[in-house]
Order: sequence, then C-alpha cells, then structure tokens
Amino acid sequence: MSKFKVAIIGGGKIADSNHIPALKQLSDRVEIVAVCSRDLTKARALADKHEIDKSFSNTLEMYEQCAPNVVVICTPNNLHYSQTMEALAHNCHVFCEKPPAVHAQNALEMAELADEKGLTLAYNFQLRQSSECKLLMRCQADGLLGDIYHIKANFLRRRGIPGWGYFTDKNIQGGGALIDLGVHVLDLALYTLGYPKPDQVLGNTYDFIGKSGGKGLLGSWNPDTFSVEDAATAYLTFPNKASISLSASFALNMQAEKDRNLEIFGSKGGVKLFPFTLHTELAGELADVQFPYLEDVDIQLKNTEAFLDACFGRPSTVCTAKQGAILQEIIERIYQSAAL
Amino acid sequence: MSKFKVAIIGGGKIADSNHIPALKQLSDRVEIVAVCSRDLTKARALADKHEIDKSFSNTLEMYEQCAPNVVVICTPNNLHYSQTMEALAHNCHVFCEKPPAVHAQNALEMAELADEKGLTLAYNFQLRQSSECKLLMRCQADGLLGDIYHIKANFLRRRGIPGWGYFTDKNIQGGGALIDLGVHVLDLALYTLGYPKPDQVLGNTYDFIGKSGGKGLLGSWNPDTFSVEDAATAYLTFPNKASISLSASFALNMQAEKDRNLEIFGSKGGVKLFPFTLHTELAGELADVQFPYLEDVDIQLKNTEAFLDACFGRPSTVCTAKQGAILQEIIERIYQSAAL
Amino acid sequence: MSKFKVAIIGGGKIADSNHIPALKQLSDRVEIVAVCSRDLTKARALADKHEIDKSFSNTLEMYEQCAPNVVVICTPNNLHYSQTMEALAHNCHVFCEKPPAVHAQNALEMAELADEKGLTLAYNFQLRQSSECKLLMRCQADGLLGDIYHIKANFLRRRGIPGWGYFTDKNIQGGGALIDLGVHVLDLALYTLGYPKPDQVLGNTYDFIGKSGGKGLLGSWNPDTFSVEDAATAYLTFPNKASISLSASFALNMQAEKDRNLEIFGSKGGVKLFPFTLHTELAGELADVQFPYLEDVDIQLKNTEAFLDACFGRPSTVCTAKQGAILQEIIERIYQSAAL
Amino acid sequence: MSKFKVAIIGGGKIADSNHIPALKQLSDRVEIVAVCSRDLTKARALADKHEIDKSFSNTLEMYEQCAPNVVVICTPNNLHYSQTMEALAHNCHVFCEKPPAVHAQNALEMAELADEKGLTLAYNFQLRQSSECKLLMRCQADGLLGDIYHIKANFLRRRGIPGWGYFTDKNIQGGGALIDLGVHVLDLALYTLGYPKPDQVLGNTYDFIGKSGGKGLLGSWNPDTFSVEDAATAYLTFPNKASISLSASFALNMQAEKDRNLEIFGSKGGVKLFPFTLHTELAGELADVQFPYLEDVDIQLKNTEAFLDACFGRPSTVCTAKQGAILQEIIERIYQSAAL
Amino acid sequence: MSKFKVAIIGGGKIADSNHIPALKQLSDRVEIVAVCSRDLTKARALADKHEIDKSFSNTLEMYEQCAPNVVVICTPNNLHYSQTMEALAHNCHVFCEKPPAVHAQNALEMAELADEKGLTLAYNFQLRQSSECKLLMRCQADGLLGDIYHIKANFLRRRGIPGWGYFTDKNIQGGGALIDLGVHVLDLALYTLGYPKPDQVLGNTYDFIGKSGGKGLLGSWNPDTFSVEDAATAYLTFPNKASISLSASFALNMQAEKDRNLEIFGSKGGVKLFPFTLHTELAGELADVQFPYLEDVDIQLKNTEAFLDACFGRPSTVCTAKQGAILQEIIERIYQSAAL
Amino acid sequence: MSKFKVAIIGGGKIADSNHIPALKQLSDRVEIVAVCSRDLTKARALADKHEIDKSFSNTLEMYEQCAPNVVVICTPNNLHYSQTMEALAHNCHVFCEKPPAVHAQNALEMAELADEKGLTLAYNFQLRQSSECKLLMRCQADGLLGDIYHIKANFLRRRGIPGWGYFTDKNIQGGGALIDLGVHVLDLALYTLGYPKPDQVLGNTYDFIGKSGGKGLLGSWNPDTFSVEDAATAYLTFPNKASISLSASFALNMQAEKDRNLEIFGSKGGVKLFPFTLHTELAGELADVQFPYLEDVDIQLKNTEAFLDACFGRPSTVCTAKQGAILQEIIERIYQSAAL
Repeated sequence: MSKFKVAIIGGGKIADSNHIPALKQLSDRVEIVAVCSRDLTKARALADKHEIDKSFSNTLEMYEQCAPNVVVICTPNNLHYSQTMEALAHNCHVFCEKPPAVHAQNALEMAELADEKGLTLAYNFQLRQSSECKLLMRCQADGLLGDIYHIKANFLRRRGIPGWGYFTDKNIQGGGALIDLGVHVLDLALYTLGYPKPDQVLGNTYDFIGKSGGKGLLGSWNPDTFSVEDAATAYLTFPNKASISLSASFALNMQAEKDRNLEIFGSKGGVKLFPFTLHTELAGELADVQFPYLEDVDIQLKNTEAFLDACFGRPSTVCTAKQGAILQEIIERIYQSAAL
Repeated sequence: MSKFKVAIIGGGKIADSNHIPALKQLSDRVEIVAVCSRDLTKARALADKHEIDKSFSNTLEMYEQCAPNVVVICTPNNLHYSQTMEALAHNCHVFCEKPPAVHAQNALEMAELADEKGLTLAYNFQLRQSSECKLLMRCQADGLLGDIYHIKANFLRRRGIPGWGYFTDKNIQGGGALIDLGVHVLDLALYTLGYPKPDQVLGNTYDFIGKSGGKGLLGSWNPDTFSVEDAATAYLTFPNKASISLSASFALNMQAEKDRNLEIFGSKGGVKLFPFTLHTELAGELADVQFPYLEDVDIQLKNTEAFLDACFGRPSTVCTAKQGAILQEIIERIYQSAAL
Repeated sequence: MSKFKVAIIGGGKIADSNHIPALKQLSDRVEIVAVCSRDLTKARALADKHEIDKSFSNTLEMYEQCAPNVVVICTPNNLHYSQTMEALAHNCHVFCEKPPAVHAQNALEMAELADEKGLTLAYNFQLRQSSECKLLMRCQADGLLGDIYHIKANFLRRRGIPGWGYFTDKNIQGGGALIDLGVHVLDLALYTLGYPKPDQVLGNTYDFIGKSGGKGLLGSWNPDTFSVEDAATAYLTFPNKASISLSASFALNMQAEKDRNLEIFGSKGGVKLFPFTLHTELAGELADVQFPYLEDVDIQLKNTEAFLDACFGRPSTVCTAKQGAILQEIIERIYQSAAL
Repeated sequence: MSKFKVAIIGGGKIADSNHIPALKQLSDRVEIVAVCSRDLTKARALADKHEIDKSFSNTLEMYEQCAPNVVVICTPNNLHYSQTMEALAHNCHVFCEKPPAVHAQNALEMAELADEKGLTLAYNFQLRQSSECKLLMRCQADGLLGDIYHIKANFLRRRGIPGWGYFTDKNIQGGGALIDLGVHVLDLALYTLGYPKPDQVLGNTYDFIGKSGGKGLLGSWNPDTFSVEDAATAYLTFPNKASISLSASFALNMQAEKDRNLEIFGSKGGVKLFPFTLHTELAGELADVQFPYLEDVDIQLKNTEAFLDACFGRPSTVCTAKQGAILQEIIERIYQSAAL
Repeated sequence: MSKFKVAIIGGGKIADSNHIPALKQLSDRVEIVAVCSRDLTKARALADKHEIDKSFSNTLEMYEQCAPNVVVICTPNNLHYSQTMEALAHNCHVFCEKPPAVHAQNALEMAELADEKGLTLAYNFQLRQSSECKLLMRCQADGLLGDIYHIKANFLRRRGIPGWGYFTDKNIQGGGALIDLGVHVLDLALYTLGYPKPDQVLGNTYDFIGKSGGKGLLGSWNPDTFSVEDAATAYLTFPNKASISLSASFALNMQAEKDRNLEIFGSKGGVKLFPFTLHTELAGELADVQFPYLEDVDIQLKNTEAFLDACFGRPSTVCTAKQGAILQEIIERIYQSAAL
Repeated sequence: MSKFKVAIIGGGKIADSNHIPALKQLSDRVEIVAVCSRDLTKARALADKHEIDKSFSNTLEMYEQCAPNVVVICTPNNLHYSQTMEALAHNCHVFCEKPPAVHAQNALEMAELADEKGLTLAYNFQLRQSSECKLLMRCQADGLLGDIYHIKANFLRRRGIPGWGYFTDKNIQGGGALIDLGVHVLDLALYTLGYPKPDQVLGNTYDFIGKSGGKGLLGSWNPDTFSVEDAATAYLTFPNKASISLSASFALNMQAEKDRNLEIFGSKGGVKLFPFTLHTELAGELADVQFPYLEDVDIQLKNTEAFLDACFGRPSTVCTAKQGAILQEIIERIYQSAAL
C-alpha cells in the first residue's frame, strides 16, 4: 500500500506544534505534500521549517497540483465548515481541529457529506488518547464502575484568556471558553456515556472579567474588543437518566491556575480522571485505588494514528463526524439557553 | 420584659442535642415550659433530662395548659406543615426545623398565615451563623466580590446514608439527600444572591447505591425499603443572569468522606467557603487571601438568638418564612424535573 | 444456657486493663467470680475495683470454693504451664496470656492435656481481631493475593525496654523482645500461612544496648540485671517453599519509636498491614489500594468473644492450643539457633 | 610513568555508558586502545562512537596486536571466568563487572591466579564510592556506631524485570534478582562488617510473577522463557555473632517502585544509608542526625580510579579478588539453600 | 526538717493556675498557709478553691498571724518592689513573679537586702526548666557549641494584646511587650551567656497597632487607654564581643500567631531552641541533629522546686536576685534608648 | 538618538555573566566598544567571547581610543573609587558594581564629582528590580502597609565562604559578609524607608568559622589567610523612629543553606519579601495574602535598563550616587562600632 499524501490547511501554532510533528513521526504511513495558508509567506516558512515540498495560499491550486488523500484543517473555527466541505468534495479524508464548526447545522452537513462520499471526517480531541481515558474505558469494560449516572466535567483557567490569536473574537471563533476549552471535556464525558443526545440543556455564560481587563497569565488581552464568554456553565440530562454538569473558563476567580478534570460517578465505582483514582468497594470495604505508573503518552501522535486507522476502516477511538455533529448541537443549545 | 415561654414539639435527637441546649444558654430570654412527643415516655424522659416541667403527647393539651409564646418544631418533615399551622393558630412564634415542609404549597400557606397573624415563622438553617458565612457577607458588603454570577453548592457524603430515623422513607421525609442535606447549601447560595426566585430549574436524582446496599459509614441501612434519592444534582438560572450548580448526596463513589462547600464566583473576587479563601487581584497582582483566625462559633446558639431577635422585630439573619417558601418551591421543581 | 463462671489468675496490669474489662462487657455470657494472686492484698484490691466477689492467694482454694468453668491466666510466663495444667485438671477452659509457655515441651503437654480433656485452651493474640487482620483474611479468601510466598514480620521499638515488671529477667520471662513482642507478629504470619511447621530456622539475638543502659522511653531499666535479648532476628523456611523474616526489639538504633508491621508478598498481590494497603494489578495496570474507613475495633473484647465461641464449639479465630505449641517450638528453635 | 593501555571486552550498555566514559575522564592515566565484542559490527560502532582506535571480535588477536596493560570485562556473567583467566594469562590487570562469576569455584580460581601473577583483579561494585558509603565508613571509624551486629540489606524493584539483555536467562546469568541486584547491597553489608565469611546461610527464591507475566516498568519480558528467580531472601550469621538479612527482587508486590537500602544497627548508633541518617544518643538524649549536603559523586568514575589505584599498589576501596570470591561463595550457598 | 510555711500575695490567674498548683504538688516540702489580696473576697475564694486555711487583705496582719517562711509574690509589676522589701524585712524567702520590678534601682535594692539578710530572693522565669533549655546547657557543657557569639531572642505575638488585667497600663506594668514577654527570652539569652552585663544597648519601641485597635486574638483591648509599647526591638553588645538581638511584641503584622524562640550561634554549633535542633559538623560533614523524644516537663513545678533548692542552699537553676537586677537594668536601658 | 558607547572595566565573572549579557540584550540603546582588564589576555578572551571589538589593559588608552559614553565597573571593591573618578573625569556615565567603595569618604567624593559633572553614577543593586520589590513598593503606595517602623534584613549563608576571588581578603574587599552580602538587603531596607540617614548604629562582627576552616559549600577557603568577618549583625535607628535589624553571613551554624529575606513591619500590614506574603486585616479579620503568580524577571537586565533611564534623565529605580554614599557611610559605621 502506498502512503497517504497529506495537505495541511492553516499555518498557525497548532499545525506547527501538533499536527506536523505527529505526521512526521508516522512517515511510514503518510507524506506531507503541502501547506496552505491565506498568508503565503507563513505557509512557505512553515513548509521550509518542516521540509515540506509545496506551499499555497489558494486551496484549489493545492488540490489541483497535489491531489492529496488527506487534508488536515488547522484554521480558525469559522473556516472549518467551508474548508471541510471543499476537501470532501475533492475526495479527501479530513482531520479537522476542534470544535467541528460554529453552527450545529454546519457540523451536520459535514457529517452527511462525509457519509455520502464514504470518506472519513474526524475531529482532533486528543484527550481521548491519554492513559487516563484508556484506563477509564478499561475500568468501565471490566465492570468496575457499574452504571454511570452523573459526570462533572470542568476545564477552568483562573486567568488564561489567550493574549494571541482570535480567541476573544466571537465572529471568528463562535464563542469563548465553552467552544474552545469546554468542548474537550464535554467530548470525554459524552464518549464515556456512549455519545447520547441530551434531553434537556440549560446553560449560562459570563463575561465580567474579560470585559474589565486585569492581570493575565497567558499574555494580555484587550477588554474593549473582548466579545466572547470568559466562562460558561451548563447542565445536561439524557434519556437514560444520566446527567452532566459542565464548566469552562478562560478567567474565573478561583484558586488553581488550571483545573481540567472529569469526575465520573457510577453505581459500583467512581473515577476522578486526573490524576486517575478509583473509588469503590473491595473485599467488603470502601477502597481508594491509585495507579502510580500510568504511561505518559504523546496524545497527538496517538490521535493522528487513530484518525489514520479510521481512514483505513480499522477500529478507531477518534472523534467521528457524527459525534462531532452531536457535540456541536449541544454547544449551540448551551449558547441559546444562555442567551435567553 | 418577661421571658418567652417555649414549647418543644418533637422528642428526637435534634431537640435533645441542638435546640434545647441552645435555649437553655439563653435562659435570660426564654424558659422552656414543655416537651411534646407522640410517644409520651420519650417526651417525659427528655423533659427530665433537661429539667423541663411539663411533657405531653397531645399538642392541644399543651397549648391549653402552657400557653407558650414560642413553639420549636423538631419533628419529621411531613409534620412541619400541620404543626406550624396549629402553632400559628395558637398565636405562637414558630422556629421550625428544615426543610420548611414537603410541598411548596404548604410552605407558602405557612408563610401567609404567619404574615397574616403578624407572627415570626423561621427555619433553622444554622450555617448562616458560621464565621465563614458572616465573612462572606462582609466581603460582599465591602465590594471585594463585585457582581456574583455563579455559585457551586455541594453537600456530599461518600457513604453517609443514615442508619437511623426516617431519612430513607420518602413518605415521611419527602425525599432524600436533596431535601435533607442539599437544602442547607441551597439556602446559603440563595441567601448570598439575595434570595431571588429562579427562572429555570433542571435536576436529576439517583438511587443506585441506596437500593444496592453495601458498606455504610453512618450505620447500616436497609436497601429493600430505601425509597428516596441517594444523590441529586441540579442547575438553576436567575433573572439577573446568575446561576447555581447544586449537588447533594447520602452516597456517592467519591474520595472524601464528606464535602460540604460553596464556591462563589464574582466579577472582582471568588470565595471558597470552607475553609474560607478569597481569590482576587490586589496591588495589581492575582492574590489568594486566607483568614487563619476565624472564630469557631456555636452556630445553633447563634441561630436561636437570631430567631428570637426576629420575634422582637430586631434585624435578624434567620431564614424567614418567605425565604422558606421560595426554597421549598425550588426543591419541588428539582424533584419534578428529575421525575420527567 | 447459664453463664460461665470465670476466675482470673494474676493480679497485674494485663488483668486489670484488658481481660476484666472485656469480660465485664460480655456479662450476658460470663460472670467473673474470683481473682487470684500470690499477693492477696493485690487480688482483693483488684476484685474490689471491678466489683468481683471473691479473692484468693491460693488457687486450690479458689477451685474448691468457686468451681469456675473458665480460668484466665495473666501471670508471668514461667507460671503459664503449671497454672494451665492445674486449671485443665480442674476441668476448666483456659484463656492464657501469650506466650504459651517458656519451653516448647510444656506448650505441647498443655495442648495434649486440653485435647484429652476435651477442653478449650487458647492464647491471647489479640491482633488477629484487628480490622486489618480480618481484611487480610478476606483479601486472601477473595483471591486478591494469590500464593503467599514471603512475609516480613517486625515488632520493633527504638528504646522501649520496659522499666517495670519482669520483662528483663530471663528466669521469669524466658527471653526478651522475641518472646514478648516478636510472638505477636510471628503468630499473625503463621496464621496467614495456615500455621505450618517450619523446615529450617535460623536466628540471632543481641543485648548490647540492654546491657549498656541509656535513655529509655518506657521508663528506666537496670543494665546490670538485664539478662534477656534486647533484639532478635530470625529467618524461617516452610515445606511449601514460603519463608518468613522476623525482627523484634526492645531497643534498636532506628528512626521510628515503634515499628510493628507485616508485609505479605503473594503472587497476585502484596499487603502492608498497618495501615492496610494492597499492591496489585487492576484493569491491566499496577494499582495501590487504600481502605480509608477500616473500623477501629476493641481487639481484646473481640478476642475474648472468640475464645468463648471456641469453648462453645463455634467457629473461632482465637489462637488454639495446637497453634500455641507450634509457635512455642519455633521460639525455642530461634533461641537455640542464636545460642550456637 | 607512561599511561596504561586499556582494552574493553564486551560491547553492551555497561561498557558504553559506564566504563568508557569513566576511563575517558582519566585520560591522564589511561588510554583505551581496543574494544572487543563477539559481534564485530557492534565493537566497531562502539569504538567509533568513543574514538577508540581498534576493534576486534577475537580477544587473542586483540592481545597480540594491542598488548594491553588493563582489561575491562563487561560481558554476560557466564563469560567472566574464562575471559578473566585469559586476561590474567596475558599479564593484564582486570577490572571485571559484577558478579565475579557464576560459580564460587571459578571466582576462587580467578583470585588465586591473580594472586599468583601479582596482578590486580577487581570487581565493579560502584556503590562503595557513594558519599553515603564513605560517610558510613567515617562514622564507624569515629566510633559513632560502636559494634555493628545486624544489617538489613535490600535491593527491591516492584516490576523491574529487565525487558532487554540476558537478565531472565539462567544459563547465561546464573540467576536473577539475587545475582544481579542483591550482590550490590550484599557487597556493601560485607564491606561494612570487614568482609567475614558467614557461619550459616539460609535462603529462598521465588518466581511466581516472572512466570506469570503482567505489566512491566523496565520493558516487557517473556514469562515463557523466564528461568531465573524474580525475588530472593536470605539470612546470614557470622562468627562474631553479627547477622545480615538480605532481600532482592526484580518483581514484588510492594508499594515503592524501587527500594535499595541498607540499615546498619550498632551498639552506639544505627544508620539508614539512603538518604543517610544516623540514630544515636547525643548530650544524653536520643538523637537523629541528617547530613543535608552530601556531595553527589560520579561513582563509576571514582570506582575506576580506585581500581587504578589498586593496580599501582596504592590504598584502594575497590572490591578485591578475594572479596569477590567470598561474595560468590555466599551467593552460591543461598541458591543451594533455596534449592533444598 | 519541718515544712516551709508559704504565703501567697496576689489573687489573680498566675497564683491560681501556676504557683498554687505547683506548691500543692510539693506538699512534702511546703504548706500553703495564707492567700493575700487587696480584694479580700478574691483572696477568700482562692483560698477556698485550693483548701488553704487563711486569707487576708492586709499583708502585715498576715505576717503577724502566720509567720511564713516563704512569700510568693504574684501581683502587678509596680507592687513587686515594696512587697518584696516587706517580705524580706519579715525574714521570708521570696519567690517573685517576673519582671523583678519596674525600675532598675529597685531591683538592685531588692538584691542587696536579700543578700544582707541571707535570704533567697528569686524570680519566676520558668522557661529555664524546659527540656530544651536543659539540653542547651548540656550541649554547651559537652563542647558541642564552642564559643557562643550571637543570640537572636524573640517573643512575638501577632495579635496577642491581652484583653484582661493591667497589661496595657504603663503606670502599673512599667511597659508592654518588652517587660512582659521579652524578659523571658532575654533571661534565657543572658543565662546562656553566663549573665554578663552589656557594654552597649540600643532599642526601639512602637505602639501603632495598640493605639489603632482592631481584631484581637487574646480578647479585646481599648486603644484609647493603651499606654505601653505593642512591640520592641533591641540590640546588645557584651565585653566578650558577643551580642544579642531581641524582639518582643503583643501585636505585629507577621504570619505566625506566636513566635517564641532563641537562636544561639556558636563557633562549633548553632541551636534553634523550639523545637530543639543542633546545626554542626559531624564526621566531617555538615549535620542537623534532632532530638525527637524530649520530655514534656511541668516547668512551673520544676521552677518552684529550683527555688526551694536555692532556699536550702542547694545548687539551683532559678533566676537569682543578682541576675534579676542585671536584667532589670537592661530593660531600663532599652526603654531609655527608645525614648531618645 | 545615537547609541551609547559602553566600555567594561574588569574581566571577571560579574562582567561575563551579568553586565555584558544584559547590555547585549539592549543593543538598540547601547553598543559595547571595549573591555579593560589589568590582564590583557583575559580582556581579549572576554571580548572575543562576546564579539566586542577592542580590549585594553590600560584604561587611559581605552578612553583615548574609544571615547565611551558609559563605563561599567566590575572590579574588586578597592578599585571602584579611582576608576569611577577617572571615568567621570572622562565625562562618562558610570554604572559601578556594589558596594560603592571601601571608605565612606570615597563614596561621598564620587557622588559629589558626578553631581558636579552632571553625570549619572549608579550602583548595581539588582534586587530592587525583582517582582517582589516592585510589589512591595506598590503595596506601600496603595496604603496597604501604613507607617513602616521596623525592618529585619538578612542575607545569611550556612557555609558559603567563596572559595574563589578576593572575598576573604580584607585589603582588597574592605570586609566580608557585610560588605559583600549585607549591602544588598540593607539597600532594599533603606530604599523601602526612603533612604534616610540613621541616628544611631550599633554592630558586631565575627570570624570564628572563617578562621577555623571546615566543610564548605561554595568551594574551599584557606582559614590561615582569612582576614574578613564571616558574619555581622547590626541595629540602626532613624530620626522618624523606624529601625532596622541587619544580619549577614558567609558562614553561620544555622539550618538553611541560605536565608536572604526582608520582613517589613508596618502599622497596617507586614510583608515577608521572599516568597512575598502580606499580613494584614481585611473585611474585619486577620488575613494572610499570597501572590502565587509573580513574574520571574531578569533583574540584571532590568537594572541595566534602569541605569540607562537615569542617564537619559527619565524616572529610574536604580541606586543613585547619593544613596550609595549614605549606604557606604552606614557600612563604615557598623565596622567602626564592631571594632570598639
């Protein structure tokens, strides 16, 4: 079998630090043939740095000249939809950065087109590949958790409003802490529950700190142009009577600098994901279990491998197009609920 | 001014350990004249232990013979309504154990009758009198918190299903962890926000562990007759765009034996209540403030004093009849939401 | 069934603090009828303190006047043999303090006579009743440990040479740290292994510190009359290829004030007894399990109950006469090995 | 004085990471002239990496062409004997990796030939050069420990069965955890006692985990070909009444990932070696002494220097041929005891 | 020898909690015959509580009726002088609370009269009897410290302005934190140095917090009548080139609630007194020594015993009249320096 | 504006590691044109390493050939005076290493000449640029500290006598721990107080350890040629009634390896500088404030920038010539006091 030809769309940090290094480690399966960016200079520089042959500022030229098998989309959120649709139309498998899109309807159309074309469309939620997430799945499979009925999912930063990029511009990103950070832990929570659609969704968003300004720990931001939520909370119920509590923040007056975690509550056992601890009964007594030697894995590498497995029709743990559509719909319902 | 005559209704642990000792420390303001219990032997034993003159198994006899000014109601939840209405009808101020009642409509009627009669009806939410709650109010008043927009309120036990009393009998208690434990922290959260009525309420209840049985840390319970929720979660939104996340459990597969806390998030500062820490900006830098010398107060004594202050028309921090009616309505809406 | 009549032989601390309080809590099953001590004044004082009817300085008088069903022997080690033989001769069940005796041959004769007479003879190794020991047995029964192949058993004190009693007099006690402290953890180790007889025994004893004197943490001792070992170490192998490493000390130049523990190594899991931790594999990963809520039990009370159960032919976890004989033989073999 | 010419025999990790770097730092005293390995490619690659002139697959050719003064033997255990005898026959000083050999008789012959030829034969037990070992010797010399009468020596790993090399092949290594790890701490214990020959030796070996397989922390091993002990314990007594308890494991169900330590008990003071603490009496009180600023030394460099000192007849702390023979005999006696 | 008859002058807390309980434990050597207080009711109540025969409001009556051998003076500082002079005039040994007096000249006269009369006058600095102080003296005697050349002596409270007694009234107490707290650690520092007279004294006092008011941790004080220093610092040099840095506070914006300590710096070793640690060189390395088992002694009992030993002419560690005069002079010089 | 031309005088470690790297980072404002050292080889090597054009062993040649605008003086203390005077005479701004000089009179003349010539002379006390010092100034400006009345300033090392350079030679350095380390924290203390001149100064110096020798942690020193103090303590009072306690050591028998800190006590709040904590009252309670996210700044870079700002007449936080003269006078007074 010959190697996949891969084109990178987007010339920013996520391409440079995550996707390209992972793909280069998988050089037995893929070859990166091109980098596209609206800014050709940026595209060329990135291509040079990673010894990639071609660079483009126009994707159509790229498709014409390179005929890639796979496209990796690393652009701002509001471009995911059109670029994915175009890539699928050019018969490419697509590995798209999270979130899937800005609107639920778009994510649905993306999934439908991929399905129709028989192509793989997947989203880059790398936390699924962590040792902790793998162990969670194994515990669930081994019956150590019983029925899971509630999950608390947090991705909180105390003062982590990014001082670079488009993270505070609603027109480009579609939202703030929820759509940028909250999606990661929401994906994990849904994945744990088997990715059901919720019955009811209630949520709230806030922007006091973002609009007031102050000390930042991820650079400085401009409060005057801050147009997204700095924090969001939500609550979801599901047909099987399970529920999720979700919190996400760029900025929140809390103690920790960062708190990214899931707590999974089941009838037989409960899990705190980071660091992984299991709380259950063993030998007739309440027991706390620690796993001190979990492997520290390269989650981007593993997720890129999982995407490639999916392209080849092998079992895969990557976030599918259908899951992405469900996720996007939930995000939209939370924002709608908050806007009431 | 002569002293209030106080009658105790209910001969259980809460009367014996909380209310009577507090009232006896306030002997300059009150005199306990009677103890009533359906079980006269129990009433007599309690009266003897605390050197109280009279004991009754019939409240009407008690009203006739003792003509109390104040009635303290320490009976199971399903009796609060009728006993309070009867006490008000006998022109007594009423200090009623939490929760106010089992049905929202009852709590409303109780508040209306108290209002109509010009009498004080109050509920025993003692945590309001803690140093931590007082300091929270002071921080809010001093502007250290700014606008409060979200509160996480938890009252969780790992395996604390009570092995005594009626705590697991829905007919008598009206519910489980939510109505018994959750009400305490919900009252604090509402009190912090100015006791608004919520816009929307979404909730969920669970009973896997309670119905399965297993190791208990507060005695042993019978899973076969367990008819309440062992845990509940809920989410509330308010007209001013604030929100509350609420969790309560008798049993949950978590690490800590007990986790009773509030996290209050404001535009200028955030507070974790136990132990009290403030997270804010000071002198241009992010700051964490600890208060190592908060006084350890007798919160039952303080709350009984606050009730008496209310009876005398003085400023008071006790939970009022109107607040109790709002609280009861929320509890009912959470149970209704969970039942869908 | 009428109650057992119990006589106490020995008027010291172990009778006063351990056996008599436990027996009094079991007043539905036993009645203490007499206290015997060579010093009649001591016997009378102890009887008065605990409201026991009779006191004696002569055991034969006691047997004649009281006809007890049970005798509890709480005297120095060198008296255990003769007093037990006498008690069995008077058709009494016997609950004897540890160690069984001073010589292996004596312990064997005691076991034979008890067997012959169909009476219960048992030794007071209370640690068997601890929650930790119970949990160890449960883990073993549940297959969590697999085959147990090595046990490290320690009972070490840094400077705990007792400044009272006969603990440093070899003629009376038969030895020092090994026979007084080491027996406790050796009994647990053997109990865990099913009480096998060892193949080989190698040991060593030391008395440098005891004979030099110095700072004491359990009173002051006289180095000039110190005639026992201050520390002992030993190694035992068993027919099934398991082994035990044993250490005991009254005095040792170590960090901790006291280190009493067992480490049990099995093919599937290992246990450290105090505080109880289990080290194993779970869900494919190395796991450490803690049991944070083990009950704090009254081990003397439980062991006295276990003895009574044995008297009534019920299943019991008390140390039997046969086990005591095996234990005593090992102690003797260690001392013989050390004397070479 | 001209420099020693040194030949390296063995092209594995220990040569590459330990011996060659140390020798290169001592370039004023030695010059590495050749690397030998059965695999010439490996020999050449290693020589190139370290800029060594010659490489051989045949040692006789090497002796002929290079005429080294010193040979460093870094091959599997079963080759130590023949290669050392050959080197001595070629009039070379020999620095041999531990253990000395596989059989006690071989180690004895090696020592005898070295003695006969007036050459230095030494073994690479580097821990002797640690600051902790030096301080132990100084404390002993200063009289801070008094008479040393018992040593606990452990080298334990929880799941450290090496997934590379010949560590699990008995034919090549002669044994497992004892001969690979246990020898290090046994050498230290014997060194502390003045390297006496033991009176009695009793030991036991185990292989449950090694033969069952499971999670590994030093790579994966093959349980089907696992032919060595995964753990060993032993007990030794000496003519002067001192004793040693020894434990070694590649795999053991314990908490720590690794536990390599010695506890030395003396009449005046006791020492725990890592981190070094001294427990004694000072100014009439029990005292614990810490030494927070011990130097972190390059123990391989120091041990190679010590070997060179020995070659030149200077005082040296390296493990001598005679000590190696005593050590090897003890290892053999432990294995024999375990095989009974 | 018959027992000493002891009279107590002063009916406050220090008599009730410290002196009388200590004297009662020494009933084989002393008998308390009377309590004197300006407030006869207080004297009588205290006498009744401790079963003391006589009580007086007039000391002359007391001397006439009781003829005590010993007087213990527990009154406010400004009465120490006259009451001590009177007691000596009545041929009594005197055990006087610290500080000796309010003026240096008075302390000198007290010492001279005691000397002239051949009576024992001593001051109650109990910290001298602590295990830590004893160990310090032993370390010094054993040569572990070498020449002592600097001592830091602190007795600091964060918000410990006493809310009772006369502690904030300069007319009665003669000063604040320095004369009440600082004297304790200054006495220890001088005692360690052999009680030399200083060459030079420089000091400073402060009263910002005391005069502003605020939160108190030892009751509430009145800032309007606060007339003493809330903190003091000083520096002393001695003829032998040693020096002392002294700090004392009732109130200081520091972290700890209380910091009472001495650091003693010597040429061979340094000591931190609470908890006692020794910093020195041992076996050629820098060493930190801890003494984990220091006895927790009743320092008042020991100091009262030491006073009685002094009365009988035995060696004693109590603070002598001469030492008290030196101490008082230093206190006066610090206040004078601060007033410049 | 054209760039400043900078000449470096002194070719040691401080030039190489601190000044030159900082100046190179400021290449938009300055250009390093020359390095001078008495040892021309050293000068040339340093110039080569940092790609600086010219090197000299004679400063006059340097002034003639290079005509620098700025001179940075990094020589031993006894050269600061003459080299600064020469540089000012050549119309250069001068950035001089601490301490200003060896004699107070010299520092005064240096300040006077700079003033006369209208040039900037500043001293390199970099700690002023730390985040902690900046936050201290901000807290003071925001009124969080009130009136500052006492400062404890320490710069202590346990065994940090430098084993290189001239640090132990009094003729060259003018003193030891005080003039080398103590000056840093004394500068900070004076800076906090507004750089007042003291009223009174009392001090003491010690050299026991330096002259005895022993274990060193910053290399080995020669006790026979050790001519400076190894430790110094001092006490200063100021006209506004504030005071400072100062300690400095190269060697002291203390626990920590290093203790460099300031404690600032004010009427409203107190600060411990490293790590920065504020102790005050907030919301009516005693509060401890931590600032967990202070930036880790390059203090040398910041101080060089501050010096350049001063040269351009901009507001600057660098230590001025006048402050240096005050500081030098205090150092001299401490040494004089100690010599009495």
